[in-house]
Amino acid sequence: MSRGRFITLEGGEGAGKSTQLRALATYLRGQGKEVVETREPGGSEGAEAIRTLLLTGDAGRWGPRAEALLFAAARADHLEKRIVPALDAGQWVLSDRFIDSSRAYQSGASGLADDDIMTLHRIGSQGLLPDRTYILALPQDEALDRARWRDQGASDRFGARDAAYHRRVADAFAAYAAEDTVRVRMIDASGAPDAVTARLIADLADLLS
Amino acid sequence: MSRGRFITLEGGEGAGKSTQLRALATYLRGQGKEVVETREPGGSEGAEAIRTLLLTGDAGRWGPRAEALLFAAARADHLEKRIVPALDAGQWVLSDRFIDSSRAYQSGASGLADDDIMTLHRIGSQGLLPDRTYILALPQDEALDRARWRDQGASDRFGARDAAYHRRVADAFAAYAAEDTVRVRMIDASGAPDAVTARLIADLADLLS
Repeated sequence: MSRGRFITLEGGEGAGKSTQLRALATYLRGQGKEVVETREPGGSEGAEAIRTLLLTGDAGRWGPRAEALLFAAARADHLEKRIVPALDAGQWVLSDRFIDSSRAYQSGASGLADDDIMTLHRIGSQGLLPDRTYILALPQDEALDRARWRDQGASDRFGARDAAYHRRVADAFAAYAAEDTVRVRMIDASGAPDAVTARLIADLADLLS
Repeated sequence: MSRGRFITLEGGEGAGKSTQLRALATYLRGQGKEVVETREPGGSEGAEAIRTLLLTGDAGRWGPRAEALLFAAARADHLEKRIVPALDAGQWVLSDRFIDSSRAYQSGASGLADDDIMTLHRIGSQGLLPDRTYILALPQDEALDRARWRDQGASDRFGARDAAYHRRVADAFAAYAAEDTVRVRMIDASGAPDAVTARLIADLADLLS
């Protein structure tokens, strides 16, 4: 039995990650794969408990350093308890967010460097990276519209942010794709969901062969 | 107003840390100092919530890497929300355990290097070290007797361990004292509690002047 593949979906709020994750899982099951659908922060019992700490309370509950360590702890647990065992069992793992979200959201404005986030990933998770990361990218205006629409109902610590913040996150994701063209791919997330899924499936072909 | 002093007490279970911490606080208050008594893991609202995650559940709830990240996250919160504000306000802070416990307990057998623990401390807490650390040291036999006595009632994830484990921890603490003779002092913790307190007070004199 061959080891499974680990695929992550990244991008700003409203880019369609969870919709596309379900669509990809359906497609891969149709190809005969066993698929685990998961998300971060969370995805394992311990990581979900950490997720609750991260998402509840007021915006100032955690400073950026404690927050980055909690995300890294959740990821370490998620990998050890769920992702790695599934891959070892030959299953494909699809995760809604992973290390690149920590890089895009926790580094920069918080005073933490991207190197620090990657160092936490090395110590916590032995630096394990996905086989493929899809960044669902929207034109800036469309992203802001979707995010604003969501923010009206936002009830957690990562709710409403301003346009400059969303732009900085989008720029960070684009930079990761430019740095590592083998692992990270930008996918145009505008238009009908089915069309976005078709773009993902076309790009995924090399991992299935 | 001058900045307060930060003093930590370290050592194995049963060495008398909490008793000596109370005695030192009483002494320092008698010298006109405002004193904050705290402990790790915990000491702030967020860190106490992380403490609950760390100490409850079965022994295998957290792998060593997630555990080390959770301890570092709790310490980052404790420092930011409680220790640093108190020191800035001119108060003396006494903590039952701090970074040296993470070094002694989380590094080594867990597969994490001491360098990794110190790197987590740099990222999470900007590497802040106490002004003075007292390691309460017992002869190995006495330490084991006291620890065994306690372990009979142990109900958390860090309960009973074997003699080799306790010896490894004691050796680690002794090594930190040898590495940094300015910050870290070994204090003979055998004999009557009052006699141990007298040794601590004698050593502390330079910080009070």
